[in-house]
Amino acid sequence: MRMYDLIMKKRNGGKLVKPEIDYMVKGFTAGEIPDYQMAAMMMAVYFVGLDEEETLHLTMAMAHSGDMLDLSGIHGVKVDKHSTGGVGDKTSLALTPMVAACGIKVAKMSGRGLGHTGGTIDKLESFAGFTTGITQRRFMENVERVGIAIMGQTADLAPADKKLYALRDVTATVDNMSLIASSIMSKKLASGADAIVLDVKTGSGAFMKAEKDARALAEEMVKIGKNAGRRTSAVISDMDQPLGYAVGNALEVKEAIATLKGEGPEDFVELCLALGSHMVVAGGMAESLAEAEGKLKQAVADGSALDKLAEFVEAQGGDKEAVYDTGRLPKAAYIEEVLSPQEGYVEHIVCDEIGICSLMLGGGRETKESVIDLSVGMELKKKVGDYVRIGEPLAKVHGNDKGKMEAAVKRLLGSYRFSGQPVGKPSLIKAVIE
Amino acid sequence: MRMYDLIMKKRNGGKLVKPEIDYMVKGFTAGEIPDYQMAAMMMAVYFVGLDEEETLHLTMAMAHSGDMLDLSGIHGVKVDKHSTGGVGDKTSLALTPMVAACGIKVAKMSGRGLGHTGGTIDKLESFAGFTTGITQRRFMENVERVGIAIMGQTADLAPADKKLYALRDVTATVDNMSLIASSIMSKKLASGADAIVLDVKTGSGAFMKAEKDARALAEEMVKIGKNAGRRTSAVISDMDQPLGYAVGNALEVKEAIATLKGEGPEDFVELCLALGSHMVVAGGMAESLAEAEGKLKQAVADGSALDKLAEFVEAQGGDKEAVYDTGRLPKAAYIEEVLSPQEGYVEHIVCDEIGICSLMLGGGRETKESVIDLSVGMELKKKVGDYVRIGEPLAKVHGNDKGKMEAAVKRLLGSYRFSGQPVGKPSLIKAVIE
Repeated sequence: MRMYDLIMKKRNGGKLVKPEIDYMVKGFTAGEIPDYQMAAMMMAVYFVGLDEEETLHLTMAMAHSGDMLDLSGIHGVKVDKHSTGGVGDKTSLALTPMVAACGIKVAKMSGRGLGHTGGTIDKLESFAGFTTGITQRRFMENVERVGIAIMGQTADLAPADKKLYALRDVTATVDNMSLIASSIMSKKLASGADAIVLDVKTGSGAFMKAEKDARALAEEMVKIGKNAGRRTSAVISDMDQPLGYAVGNALEVKEAIATLKGEGPEDFVELCLALGSHMVVAGGMAESLAEAEGKLKQAVADGSALDKLAEFVEAQGGDKEAVYDTGRLPKAAYIEEVLSPQEGYVEHIVCDEIGICSLMLGGGRETKESVIDLSVGMELKKKVGDYVRIGEPLAKVHGNDKGKMEAAVKRLLGSYRFSGQPVGKPSLIKAVIE
Repeated sequence: MRMYDLIMKKRNGGKLVKPEIDYMVKGFTAGEIPDYQMAAMMMAVYFVGLDEEETLHLTMAMAHSGDMLDLSGIHGVKVDKHSTGGVGDKTSLALTPMVAACGIKVAKMSGRGLGHTGGTIDKLESFAGFTTGITQRRFMENVERVGIAIMGQTADLAPADKKLYALRDVTATVDNMSLIASSIMSKKLASGADAIVLDVKTGSGAFMKAEKDARALAEEMVKIGKNAGRRTSAVISDMDQPLGYAVGNALEVKEAIATLKGEGPEDFVELCLALGSHMVVAGGMAESLAEAEGKLKQAVADGSALDKLAEFVEAQGGDKEAVYDTGRLPKAAYIEEVLSPQEGYVEHIVCDEIGICSLMLGGGRETKESVIDLSVGMELKKKVGDYVRIGEPLAKVHGNDKGKMEAAVKRLLGSYRFSGQPVGKPSLIKAVIE
């Protein structure tokens, strides 16, 4: 078999069969197939596409390119959740304790990554002492005992995907549905969960701006998951404005804690219940979504979800007291109110821009080496559909550097659009694919 | 400027402007733009295409990536000729002395390359002592004095094309008209001739199997040449069966000499006159193609074309006596007649297969390191349209190894197709593009 022939076949509209895809992924990962041939192949795939079978084979080949986590030693159905990411997305922080309180086992591999705020691990480090540097054995034990454990992504999880993504990233071949779906799903499959619930974001702050693209991606991923024998479903949710009100690491932790106390923002609560009920049903702890939702609400109402967060934080070395006393979380030196220069209904918030404000304040990573300031960020006070008067606060900016704050305030103001006419609140859940 | 953005632009159907193409070619040649980015770009170009302006800019950028030969010191119009290659293509050997005898200056850079037989340089080495290892100064002097000189391609002629072609060759991005045309024309433009006559082959033995593809390539190249300010025309000629009767290095030299004596095969003579008359007109030595053809015929009739070959061979160190006594050319140890197993009209000769016979006998290069046996090859006795009886010779095989000859004979027989019905002779000249 020669890579040249495979490129030619795909370029001419052909379909790659399993042994060909296996050969390609193995050879590329081992460095035997050069980057330039894989780059040509990826561009051919961009134009010709991969069908359902090819996408499955690619995903499986990448999943098997490194370690396949074996969670079979843990009792019960292990459920994983993945979000395609957005601004103010603190979902895992609240959702995970909620479902774990309902008896679901959550074994998560999380990344830090680059972005406007940190990843889930960074956010959790707002709890002093919290670490994801635990052994695989301890990870398994914690999942069994606590119901939740989070580990940093080991280097050997789907290394083929890591290498291929890095190449696609510099050759303008990222935005192909099959390739995006196989990249995400290869890691999920290697992570070993029995069931996977996907949160696919759409809107100005999401990777998938258009809802039809988000739907296509969700469908691709659900198909892969099912074809790979994992119970898989996806919720398509709005990311046309930030999720909830808080954007920034410790601020998001605070909002997640508020949510576990029953005081969460309406949209965020809705998302947690939607994703959570799919996880609870997938995990076999409820017969229907309605029953699952009832259990989740109960776990919040009786405090067991909040206690589960404390238990989880403690099990990974973190300061559990901060769950009950959020004054112990990182705090910024300055808080400034951003007042509305206009009267009217908030028509739109350029979601990406709010993310950039967080980055400007020091809350995100521009390069792998960046150090994140966990204390900074924004608390929005007005979202789409809200009425605001001149001089009323639109948001609060938390920062440690007056100059950076000034720039962030300016940018934040520029991201709000107002209308004289009433504006409807956008629906958060766009669709469910299963 | 970033290569990433250029790939994305082309991938999305955009048009690259001159500074972008210059940046890309320079960066790639200098090794600053990695192979994998250029491979992705080439595949995007394969799918999206390059328009006339982009193709011109690419060609010019590649032409200027190394030395630009300056022939302005030589008096008169310098005319170059290029063939896309085929089986039995000894055109330069006869054509060049014919036009030089009419006063045209031919300054040729020729390659050896890989193929069924050697390149023009290899064939010329059938004259004992002939060398292309001459200085640029001597080359210029010979063009001025003799009218013809041939030099091996220097390493610094269009190095960007060399590097890019090598990459395309392993990434399945060779067969795009604009890229093929720019590759050929970049070298022609760097070679410094004022006028260029192209021989674009079509048929089973050509790179362009389909006539419409050959026409498209010819049109692309003529456009580039004209846009670059060089008088350019193209003849589209048949390569559905070997050109003339001889295939093999010294055998082709003999056939070229016979042609210069007025004893050439009909198809080969027709091609030399067609290409030659365009060269003579382009070089300003005739007003019309008819007048040019008359001069060429005269040069053959009065022996001046044959003498010109002798003069040229001598000027580059070769044995000029062999021009008048072809017994001095390399000869194979064995000659075997291949007899027809069938009666009928020759319907088709699988042209590629005849080339492979030559390669099997040792007449071509499989790798850059192969040593060519100049003496071996085939003389066809029957071509398409000819009637043949059982036991009548189809060809003669010249070889130095009985085992190889046996294999070649078998293959040669397999390449002939016969018909009970009369078959028309194919026309040699398909079209002229100017």
